[in-house]
Amino acid sequence: MAVYTPERSDRDRASVREVLDRARAEGRSALTAPEGRVLAEAYGIPVPGEALAGTAEEAAALAAELGLPVAAKIVSPDILHKTDAGGVEIGLNSAEEVAAAFERITANARAHDPDARIDGVQIQQMVGGGVEVLVGATTDPTFGKVVVFGLGGVLVEVLKDVAFRLAPLTREEALGQLDSIRAAEVLSGVRGSEAVDKGALADLLVRLSDLVSDFPEISEADLNPVFASASGAIAADLRFVLDFEPAKGPDKFSREEILASMERIFKPRSIAIIGASNEAGKIGNSVIKNIVDGGYEGGVHPVNPKAKEVYGRASYASITDVPGDVDVAVFAIPAKFVASALEEAGRKGVAGAILIPSGFAETGEQELQDEVLAVARRHGVRLLGPNIYGYYYTPQKLSATFCTPYDVAGGTALTSQSGGIGMAILGYSRSTRTGVSAIVGVGNKADIDEDDLLTFFGQDENTNAIAMHLEDLKDGRAFVAAAREVVPKKPVVVLKAGRTSAGARAAGSHTGALAGDDKVYDDILRQAGVVRAPGLTELLEYGRALPVLPAPTGENIVIITGAGGSGVLLSDAVVDNGMSLYEIPPDLDKAFRAFIPPFGAAGNPVDITGGEPPSTYEKTIRLGLEDPRVHSLVLGYWHTIVTPPLVFADVVIDVVSKARAAGIDKPVVASLSGDTEVEAASQKLFEHGIVAYPYTTEMPVKVLGAKYRWARSAGVL
Amino acid sequence: MAVYTPERSDRDRASVREVLDRARAEGRSALTAPEGRVLAEAYGIPVPGEALAGTAEEAAALAAELGLPVAAKIVSPDILHKTDAGGVEIGLNSAEEVAAAFERITANARAHDPDARIDGVQIQQMVGGGVEVLVGATTDPTFGKVVVFGLGGVLVEVLKDVAFRLAPLTREEALGQLDSIRAAEVLSGVRGSEAVDKGALADLLVRLSDLVSDFPEISEADLNPVFASASGAIAADLRFVLDFEPAKGPDKFSREEILASMERIFKPRSIAIIGASNEAGKIGNSVIKNIVDGGYEGGVHPVNPKAKEVYGRASYASITDVPGDVDVAVFAIPAKFVASALEEAGRKGVAGAILIPSGFAETGEQELQDEVLAVARRHGVRLLGPNIYGYYYTPQKLSATFCTPYDVAGGTALTSQSGGIGMAILGYSRSTRTGVSAIVGVGNKADIDEDDLLTFFGQDENTNAIAMHLEDLKDGRAFVAAAREVVPKKPVVVLKAGRTSAGARAAGSHTGALAGDDKVYDDILRQAGVVRAPGLTELLEYGRALPVLPAPTGENIVIITGAGGSGVLLSDAVVDNGMSLYEIPPDLDKAFRAFIPPFGAAGNPVDITGGEPPSTYEKTIRLGLEDPRVHSLVLGYWHTIVTPPLVFADVVIDVVSKARAAGIDKPVVASLSGDTEVEAASQKLFEHGIVAYPYTTEMPVKVLGAKYRWARSAGVL
Repeated sequence: MAVYTPERSDRDRASVREVLDRARAEGRSALTAPEGRVLAEAYGIPVPGEALAGTAEEAAALAAELGLPVAAKIVSPDILHKTDAGGVEIGLNSAEEVAAAFERITANARAHDPDARIDGVQIQQMVGGGVEVLVGATTDPTFGKVVVFGLGGVLVEVLKDVAFRLAPLTREEALGQLDSIRAAEVLSGVRGSEAVDKGALADLLVRLSDLVSDFPEISEADLNPVFASASGAIAADLRFVLDFEPAKGPDKFSREEILASMERIFKPRSIAIIGASNEAGKIGNSVIKNIVDGGYEGGVHPVNPKAKEVYGRASYASITDVPGDVDVAVFAIPAKFVASALEEAGRKGVAGAILIPSGFAETGEQELQDEVLAVARRHGVRLLGPNIYGYYYTPQKLSATFCTPYDVAGGTALTSQSGGIGMAILGYSRSTRTGVSAIVGVGNKADIDEDDLLTFFGQDENTNAIAMHLEDLKDGRAFVAAAREVVPKKPVVVLKAGRTSAGARAAGSHTGALAGDDKVYDDILRQAGVVRAPGLTELLEYGRALPVLPAPTGENIVIITGAGGSGVLLSDAVVDNGMSLYEIPPDLDKAFRAFIPPFGAAGNPVDITGGEPPSTYEKTIRLGLEDPRVHSLVLGYWHTIVTPPLVFADVVIDVVSKARAAGIDKPVVASLSGDTEVEAASQKLFEHGIVAYPYTTEMPVKVLGAKYRWARSAGVL
Repeated sequence: MAVYTPERSDRDRASVREVLDRARAEGRSALTAPEGRVLAEAYGIPVPGEALAGTAEEAAALAAELGLPVAAKIVSPDILHKTDAGGVEIGLNSAEEVAAAFERITANARAHDPDARIDGVQIQQMVGGGVEVLVGATTDPTFGKVVVFGLGGVLVEVLKDVAFRLAPLTREEALGQLDSIRAAEVLSGVRGSEAVDKGALADLLVRLSDLVSDFPEISEADLNPVFASASGAIAADLRFVLDFEPAKGPDKFSREEILASMERIFKPRSIAIIGASNEAGKIGNSVIKNIVDGGYEGGVHPVNPKAKEVYGRASYASITDVPGDVDVAVFAIPAKFVASALEEAGRKGVAGAILIPSGFAETGEQELQDEVLAVARRHGVRLLGPNIYGYYYTPQKLSATFCTPYDVAGGTALTSQSGGIGMAILGYSRSTRTGVSAIVGVGNKADIDEDDLLTFFGQDENTNAIAMHLEDLKDGRAFVAAAREVVPKKPVVVLKAGRTSAGARAAGSHTGALAGDDKVYDDILRQAGVVRAPGLTELLEYGRALPVLPAPTGENIVIITGAGGSGVLLSDAVVDNGMSLYEIPPDLDKAFRAFIPPFGAAGNPVDITGGEPPSTYEKTIRLGLEDPRVHSLVLGYWHTIVTPPLVFADVVIDVVSKARAAGIDKPVVASLSGDTEVEAASQKLFEHGIVAYPYTTEMPVKVLGAKYRWARSAGVL
């Protein structure tokens, strides 16, 4: 294989600049084929030999020089769809055919549009053979420049088998992109065909990604088809779409700026409640009650000009009257009063304004929201919301919300864009006693969004997993950057709602049309190492379970089960979740067999059979924990009189605790089949660091799979 | 399009018989190409023109007659892999090339195997163009003859994009098979290519399915490639594998025989417990206690020679001593005593023997199990088990099991192949108060299996949904036949465990190799109208919820939600589950808008916004129920002080009950987001016929999707 040097020093930026400037000057939003070729050559993207012919004789001569067969294509700044204009002929095999084609094509073009300027006819070497692929780039509204790769023809057209990556991308990422389409095997050669040169294809992807990154006005690019073979990759057709007025992104803050604000917001020394009230049922009443009753130990200052005291605390007419510094102002007043009250809060120097009220962008009042944001920016105040339930941060016993306090401290930070989902988070967490560090509503995201929160939680010593519900990202690149920073330290789980509502998007290129929202989100969140939750159920379960499980240190998974039937379903689940069963070596198999009845099945699953006493579970689980070749255990429990559910739970807790005390900390998940006592047993196991569920063989393994996905992204595996 | 007449009268069975008999006589397990051609022509499967040449001159003459280009292929009963033997040349464009190819091919064949008998060289018209597809047939160990269809090349090889159907199949089923591959769109023409003649392809599938059904000794067939185009379908290459000693299937019973036994087993007038015991902790003690305490009202007769009385009932030394008829004998004795006790039970004339003991095939004691089955067959006794927990049938208050009684009567019959899964069924059902008609363990399935149970539950007036866990089917065809009978009357849900363990199967053909267990199960269970549960969780939830939901009468689904965020996730779930959101017409949209705040969003989802009183839920839900254009409702609830969870539940129950009283009975499912009170509200809704879940937007819609899948299969939609 050739050695590729995707050094950026070999890029000829000046030539590209010249072409784009001319297009801009001429008010064009697309490049001609020769212009596209200039861009490709400037960035080292291989293209077929070609040249422009001004006459039929020139065409024939060029064809002979380039080598037959050739294609002939009209070149006109006024004809975008060349085929429709009768401006393309292919497979021309002799000088005579080429000359005749020249005449036909120019005549067709004139007939198609008598005013079209005709620059000539492009004579192009015809390439083919190998595997036909599509390489493209587009400008995603969320993520900006992305590159796409897929196999040509039916696979792209019908099955949408494509992979997206953020541009620019590294050579390693490009190689990963090639491997991540479903039909990737084709590139390695199937049915006796030769493998293509993946290095050449990856290099081409890198070069295109550099080109669109260096020149943001290239909004879309199609290299389609690209012919990939054992000897390289060559782009047979190029198409570039331009946009000289790209949309402006949201404001950017540095990591230091973000953390300075977030530290004060999550760990405030004092809080003012704007609109605190003594009237039961009012939001301003619920908020102050929850903050005080939740056990928050900092200063709590009601602001309400009509009251002297609220909930036993001195009330102030304005936040500016509150003595001392105030870190956070929680707003519990109607939308129309927010801007002026925020002005005062800004003057007071608060770090964060928690905007509970609705009545902003979500009800069409975008201007009111913009006005509030402008006030905040003027004073350097960060806004959470508006249109939220508030936020919880258990390390500070802080429940700044109109819901109810939450007090089970733990490692999971949860955020939601929707209040309804936030309430589900709260109820589910309470019901399962999930250990939570924070629950945060982001609502309309006028200001603070997921990447700010990721930045804070990523370095927060009280948080060891982050689970986020979101419907969109204001700035996909900032999110990816924050996620890449956090993922090596702790898992980030994302439920992206609105997956299937993408619908059609207007697009000027093939690549643009392929970029349905969800596929782009899916590929790029994966690229950023985020664990995607397929639904709300998984967001909640992963959020609950991931911090409980230790990080796996290898891929060898062993199932130990008392119920053969559970073993089969657990095996299905292991494979469904991208893991595989460890092929147990003979010595270890023999060691397992020593503990189980002769008709039990060793191998994997290790089937200890039903009706065994607690000691059989104990011995086999201990063996699995102590053998260094085994990295994770999946347990299947079957309720029997001999080993009742809580006895099983105690045995597992005991053997796992002893192993942990001895420095062995492996992920252990369990599926409990039995009568209703298995519910209490599962809860007890969970509270002791064994992720356990009753009546399901899927969920424990899904959770383990999520932990593995994270561990692989984080580089701990 | 041509008119196809897949009448079976045009089949030339005699020619096929002759070819197969000759192959059998010669001890061959494969047919030569000319023999394959005889089969194809006998069944009207279009093949390219071809003929056998004995000399190079004949070959050249034949090529001219058939039309160039041609292919030349060695014909020898001793050479199966022609290409490996240098026995194939293609694209021969002149008489000279054909003659030269004849000489090379025969020389290669002789070099490959000097002893090979050479019948000549087949000269074959080369066909091509259109779409390359694979049509095949194989003999599945579970389902017998199945036909497969897929697109040729990468789509079959790499993506395994194929569809299976039971043979023989109808023309309508064949057309459905064409449409059920993922890349089906290709057949309708993509990228400007013409649509293929689907009728011709379907006809070819029907003809092949008839051929393999009429001649079971054809174990595998590959028609690969078949070239399909607008003008027809032609099989360019044929390959047949034979097996003259097919495996024998299990015993068959008629529907009448099955029902006669099952009626007595599920509705026994009297039961004997072989091995009934007074000793706590013994299975024979648990079983009699559960039968008596469960409330069974028929005769209960302990059989135990060592006791005078067991659990207050007279005990007998032998079942033959029990006065009067006995319908069922439950065995709670060690495996080794079962055969002799069954002999006595057989003489007593029991209809069913419930074999709880383990120690049979599952521990390697296949012979003991065969012996017991032989005794049963001799006496016409049907066996349940062995190696099971027993069975429940709530209409008879019958708990013939060593677990605990179950008393929430209802419409779901559940069966499990594994005891562990049976215990999960029991615990889950009890915890959720699922209404159950029966829970049955089938264990080793020495005799009674899923198709017997389907046959009974299908006609059982106490059962209105059937949920089955299975790891295999003894007789896939009998199951499909039973399912087809039952599905139009009630839903059948199947969890097929062992999906991913298929692994490699030895196969003599391409088609055989493609038939991984799971894809065959998936396609054929779907063909039979069965709703497949992806996991244990769904088996249990579908089993619980399907009988609660009325059958939908149309595809128009409307989401009504108080939480916008739930609305988005519920919309995702609707699409994920193969349904779509109703595009609400302007008049109905206007009617919804009249009930919701101006900033709420009508359209679908109907977003009534948070903070609305119970009356808003009530009015919008009533509207959805009463408008005949709406067929199903999906509700999203958001916990607020204004409409607390139980108030929401009561409102929904009230409005739905009134609609039902007025004759409007539509499926209504709900997702409840909120604090822990939503759990009680969901349970209450469920008990009133509204399928509701807390903290999940996925499960209510999954259940609705399962009901729709059933309704479409049952033909009620």
